[in-house]
Amino acid sequence: MDTYQQVADFIHQERLLQPGQRLVAGVSGGPDSLCLLDCLNRLGYQIIVAHLDHQLRPESAEEATFVQRVAQTYGVLAVIDRWDKGATVGPGSSIEEVARLARYRFLVQVAKENGVELIATGHTADDQVETILMHFLRGAGPSGLRGMLPSTSLNSWVGIPDSTEITLVRPLLDTTREQTQAHCIAIDLEPRLDPSNLDQTYTRNRLRHHLIPILESYNPGVRQVIRRTGRVMAGEAELVATLVADRWPELVRRGGEGVFVIRVKPFLEQPTALQRALLREVISRLRRTLRDVGFEAVERAIHFITIPQRGRRQALVGELELIHFSDEVVVREPDAPIEYPNLPQLISDRRRRLSIPGRIRLAYDWYLEATIEPLNSVRRGELMNESSPRVVAVDEISIDTPLAIRPGKPGDRIRPLGMGGSIKVSDLLINQHIPQPARARWPLVVCGEHILWVVGLRMSNDFRLNNKTKRAIVLHLRDPKDEE
Amino acid sequence: MDTYQQVADFIHQERLLQPGQRLVAGVSGGPDSLCLLDCLNRLGYQIIVAHLDHQLRPESAEEATFVQRVAQTYGVLAVIDRWDKGATVGPGSSIEEVARLARYRFLVQVAKENGVELIATGHTADDQVETILMHFLRGAGPSGLRGMLPSTSLNSWVGIPDSTEITLVRPLLDTTREQTQAHCIAIDLEPRLDPSNLDQTYTRNRLRHHLIPILESYNPGVRQVIRRTGRVMAGEAELVATLVADRWPELVRRGGEGVFVIRVKPFLEQPTALQRALLREVISRLRRTLRDVGFEAVERAIHFITIPQRGRRQALVGELELIHFSDEVVVREPDAPIEYPNLPQLISDRRRRLSIPGRIRLAYDWYLEATIEPLNSVRRGELMNESSPRVVAVDEISIDTPLAIRPGKPGDRIRPLGMGGSIKVSDLLINQHIPQPARARWPLVVCGEHILWVVGLRMSNDFRLNNKTKRAIVLHLRDPKDEE
Repeated sequence: MDTYQQVADFIHQERLLQPGQRLVAGVSGGPDSLCLLDCLNRLGYQIIVAHLDHQLRPESAEEATFVQRVAQTYGVLAVIDRWDKGATVGPGSSIEEVARLARYRFLVQVAKENGVELIATGHTADDQVETILMHFLRGAGPSGLRGMLPSTSLNSWVGIPDSTEITLVRPLLDTTREQTQAHCIAIDLEPRLDPSNLDQTYTRNRLRHHLIPILESYNPGVRQVIRRTGRVMAGEAELVATLVADRWPELVRRGGEGVFVIRVKPFLEQPTALQRALLREVISRLRRTLRDVGFEAVERAIHFITIPQRGRRQALVGELELIHFSDEVVVREPDAPIEYPNLPQLISDRRRRLSIPGRIRLAYDWYLEATIEPLNSVRRGELMNESSPRVVAVDEISIDTPLAIRPGKPGDRIRPLGMGGSIKVSDLLINQHIPQPARARWPLVVCGEHILWVVGLRMSNDFRLNNKTKRAIVLHLRDPKDEE
Repeated sequence: MDTYQQVADFIHQERLLQPGQRLVAGVSGGPDSLCLLDCLNRLGYQIIVAHLDHQLRPESAEEATFVQRVAQTYGVLAVIDRWDKGATVGPGSSIEEVARLARYRFLVQVAKENGVELIATGHTADDQVETILMHFLRGAGPSGLRGMLPSTSLNSWVGIPDSTEITLVRPLLDTTREQTQAHCIAIDLEPRLDPSNLDQTYTRNRLRHHLIPILESYNPGVRQVIRRTGRVMAGEAELVATLVADRWPELVRRGGEGVFVIRVKPFLEQPTALQRALLREVISRLRRTLRDVGFEAVERAIHFITIPQRGRRQALVGELELIHFSDEVVVREPDAPIEYPNLPQLISDRRRRLSIPGRIRLAYDWYLEATIEPLNSVRRGELMNESSPRVVAVDEISIDTPLAIRPGKPGDRIRPLGMGGSIKVSDLLINQHIPQPARARWPLVVCGEHILWVVGLRMSNDFRLNNKTKRAIVLHLRDPKDEE
């Protein structure tokens, strides 16, 4: 029987299963899943049959009994459960979608209870055609038009913690529904045809019984053609995914829990298709379960990124928020703090005393260190070197009150060394291209209310070494690498 | 009237036209092309109206007169011509396709006669939807699903020599048919509605009047959705084109007139989508006018490339041929000679005398040079250096007959210097990874029928310098760069 060979070839070609592997098979009792059960059994896999009685139709109990009986004839375990729809269907979800999710959750539960990491379903080539067509009518890029994958991780959208990887395989994806039906006849199994297949109010069934026959009047080979488009698009999606993975480190960084940061300039240099894919990837990492991210949302986000305007905000999707900081655009969960591990940042807004000598810890393992040095050693060293703004030396005598660190506040000004006049600290930070959230936590070393050092950037002229200086206070900003 | 603004915005956004530019507008007399004419006129472009009377329907002559009259009211030149279908419709082409090509050829002709390089047509957003849908039903990758481009070169498929670049622009591609009709009413022009629009036997019109309304019952916004898919796919196609251009020099080289050579190993390392696109690009460079290259043809070619077997051949499309040479796969016109400008190759199969001293020209500006040197200078130089196989020195005394160059022939053997025993020349070339077509034209230096040097690879032990050598014959292979 060449269905066996065809399924075996497909499993081999797509590397779906190892010989004799244990798996859970979702069996509804229709021709596709019965064909799946029979083929997997014949090909020597160890099957656990799983059937969820949706109780949406009167005959569903009988179907459950039927599946149980068939499993017995194969001598394999069958796990049957009933689904209580009342408990889970909220407003705004279609019963189809909710039932589908419940079914997958059930399959995952059966797999976990039996220590199995593989689930097989009976999706056929015709299901594939319908899926692709549905995505086409709904509007989709390559990842929608490729349809269902032969093998995919269930973790993301069923919401399984990442520790157990559960994989869904579709061994019949290259087999037509006509073939599964013929196979059932040949092995003398009478499928319980799911009557909802004939109910044209469901989109998928309308496609199956109404639209596809019409499309076949335009092109008799349209099913084949749509499957081919799926294969081409799978290749495209793979290509784009490769490129996204390739460019990701250069273009995007994590900015803390629930935060990603996009580097504007290199992002805008990418081709549009890659910009779209990168944004979708960012969204998908923040919102694993969000399935349909609209085209317009992505286009609006790209448009948002192209127009720099500091501090501008815009809603993205799923409550995610975009914030523009000129050089960078932040994508984040509402109110998630944005982290800058590569910049000196205060741990809290609190003012803290800096002892001399002494050291004070900043965020992400940065440190600020204060020492006292005789003037000679300071003069001899590279401490005055303007190109090393991480170290400053100030006149000990000018320090009349204990030093402290604190964030900036409105009205803060400094008279920077080597510049005429005074400047607002906030302007100084902006001029140095420090992103706004990082400015809010930028450490200032103060002497009383007098700003001595905008850490790592500029020290005040008022504290500079002079002819009368005997000893210097040396302040040293150390990054995490200095500590290693 | 905001159609003007919308069209102006689209022209600006897609950079279709320069202000006041001269162009040829194809005007059928239907609402779309009248709207085009009116908008382009209002926006200040210098228009030449072109109308081809297809003579496919009785009322076509009246339409031609109508277009002439409208052009007059705008005070612009109109070029009207009649098409004699009998002369050009061959068997196997649809009248639609032939008429379409004739129309574009006519537009190009009008453009050339008037020294204009731009042609505008009235394709609307609805035409775009139909085109994309048609491609979807026929099976297409991103470049098909993106639909018509706002701007495209006409040279390739109309078959214009590359010297004059003629560009086709579609300023109404973002305007719906409903809008063009409303526009015509607003400016009080009564379009001649092309009655073939109502003829449902033509695929496009069946799509328009039958299929799209059905699709709208699935998704009322389906037109919008399909246009969006087109935009996404345009981005994908652009991305892939960038990658193809990027990888091309590494993966493909010209191998002469009508020949491209694909480097197998790096080709197979590319993602499938890129392999497909690279092959399509090779095909399109060899067959400019070939429009629909089937999916299966490309898949078969990729499969062919994956399985190395020296000298194997396979038909591609449009009479193109694939030949496998293990490291390289050749795509060529039937019988086109394969060139290897980077290898020493004979100009002809003829045996030619090599004078001493003297030089002989090889293909692609390579040269072979013979000189006589006293032994001292030879010994002192680097001529004996095995790592420079482009120069060999042989004992003058051993040359008992004049030297000649010729290609290899069956049975040729050599006893290579530094190796025990003799080896077939053909095996030596194979071992050195010389592709088969290059082997057939590989120069051998012979002394009578005794092979002295497989040029650039191995010399014979029988002619080596020895204790009794007084003078040496030095043979030098020079590549084109040596000559500069």
